Amino acid sequence: MADKLNVLGAEDLSSMIVEAPFHQWMGLSLLALTEQYVDLQIRWREEYIVNPQRRYTHGGILAAFIDLAADWAIAAKFGRGVPTVDMRIDYHKAAMPGDLWARGRLLKLGRTCSSAEAVVYDMEGTMLASGRGVYLTAE
Amino acid sequence: MADKLNVLGAEDLSSMIVEAPFHQWMGLSLLALTEQYVDLQIRWREEYIVNPQRRYTHGGILAAFIDLAADWAIAAKFGRGVPTVDMRIDYHKAAMPGDLWARGRLLKLGRTCSSAEAVVYDMEGTMLASGRGVYLTAE
Amino acid sequence: MADKLNVLGAEDLSSMIVEAPFHQWMGLSLLALTEQYVDLQIRWREEYIVNPQRRYTHGGILAAFIDLAADWAIAAKFGRGVPTVDMRIDYHKAAMPGDLWARGRLLKLGRTCSSAEAVVYDMEGTMLASGRGVYLTAE
Amino acid sequence: MADKLNVLGAEDLSSMIVEAPFHQWMGLSLLALTEQYVDLQIRWREEYIVNPQRRYTHGGILAAFIDLAADWAIAAKFGRGVPTVDMRIDYHKAAMPGDLWARGRLLKLGRTCSSAEAVVYDMEGTMLASGRGVYLTAE
Repeated sequence: MADKLNVLGAEDLSSMIVEAPFHQWMGLSLLALTEQYVDLQIRWREEYIVNPQRRYTHGGILAAFIDLAADWAIAAKFGRGVPTVDMRIDYHKAAMPGDLWARGRLLKLGRTCSSAEAVVYDMEGTMLASGRGVYLTAE
Repeated sequence: MADKLNVLGAEDLSSMIVEAPFHQWMGLSLLALTEQYVDLQIRWREEYIVNPQRRYTHGGILAAFIDLAADWAIAAKFGRGVPTVDMRIDYHKAAMPGDLWARGRLLKLGRTCSSAEAVVYDMEGTMLASGRGVYLTAE
Repeated sequence: MADKLNVLGAEDLSSMIVEAPFHQWMGLSLLALTEQYVDLQIRWREEYIVNPQRRYTHGGILAAFIDLAADWAIAAKFGRGVPTVDMRIDYHKAAMPGDLWARGRLLKLGRTCSSAEAVVYDMEGTMLASGRGVYLTAE
Repeated sequence: MADKLNVLGAEDLSSMIVEAPFHQWMGLSLLALTEQYVDLQIRWREEYIVNPQRRYTHGGILAAFIDLAADWAIAAKFGRGVPTVDMRIDYHKAAMPGDLWARGRLLKLGRTCSSAEAVVYDMEGTMLASGRGVYLTAE
């Protein structure tokens, strides 16, 4: 299971992730796909802001981005997005205006539940948030 | 600490939660505020959808809503939104199109970190997701 | 599913929880079993201590106790202990020497995964730790 | 902060981790300490068992081990064990009788709260559980 190969190529995954209206709203795009990880990017939006004075991004946006990067790291192995069972997010640093990218990585593929982790960075490579989730991968 | 009273009334909290562009985008409004809990509502948006065929809402929206309901349960006691340190979300049922509401509740106020939990429901009262977070409440 | 009745009575559950060598070591016993919750107790042991000067209990003991109270809240509905998929623990207050009790409660029964939460108290009723877990309930 | 050097050497850390009665009970010892990680080992005990037939270890033992490996990854930078605020554990595979080891690693040092992660392996290097926690590092 640890060596399960991707069943999606970069082109497939690129076109699948733009189907969701929510992903379109976030301006989601694929940066890289390997057997070990998936790198995704979102475009900054004024609506992300939680604090109008300090202008940083709502933690819910980072949570959504971690969820989807972890999810697509698993999806690359299964050929489809998988339902999230639960997730945990740690916030490390305020996300200021600007695009963001995230790396999603498998932790463990299982028959019923699989786990993956993701880290969100700004475009200078500073870690802003990280987390992990469990996904339902039963047929 | 368990008996710390609200320092925000319903009117204050109502006007504070609409300052954030992200909260405006979600159509956030206050339903009820007591010493024990805060009830918030968000308006459904087409952009929430993650699956265009089955039309259910992205888990990131539910995560954001849980974060903010838990946060404002603490904020009512402190008079300001507080930074999220980390959070956990459990997904119980797909959220179909329609407005949603959430109840946020204190778990424990601490000097440095405080914890709160929240549950998201649809307008029929079905539990869709639940979770908890730790918030930085140090001065 | 919300109304699934217990398939274990208090006597069954009492005798099942003492089978595990780990539970025996903790001196686990059943205090109460209802359709809504299970209350369990553990006996204090000198080996629980993490800080020999301040003499409080290791967080791992509280984590283990939360896991098992949440697990048996689900087990009462299924007739057997169920594997833990993941869990989260929040620590609220140092646990000083003395017996402890915990209340475990279902959050949501699902076909594949079910979730439950638990709170650990000292014998005066002070909340020391709380948490939640996801358990594999697929057949 | 990312480059904060260890203030404890391997000898200091080795002698500090055996002070706790709980750590003594687990037979805790230091395998390796670098600026990036700490590797710790625990000795198998019959009392770890949760299932007397299948003889695997209670998840609470793995949770305790993850907590302490993550904690000591931070402690190496601060010179003392630090209180756990909260933690998350993912269970990947049943832990069968035998010694276990864990690698703890910093995620992010902060002024008030710091986060670290850990993975538990059996002596053949199979990943059994992983997780992360937030620790109070305010003075």
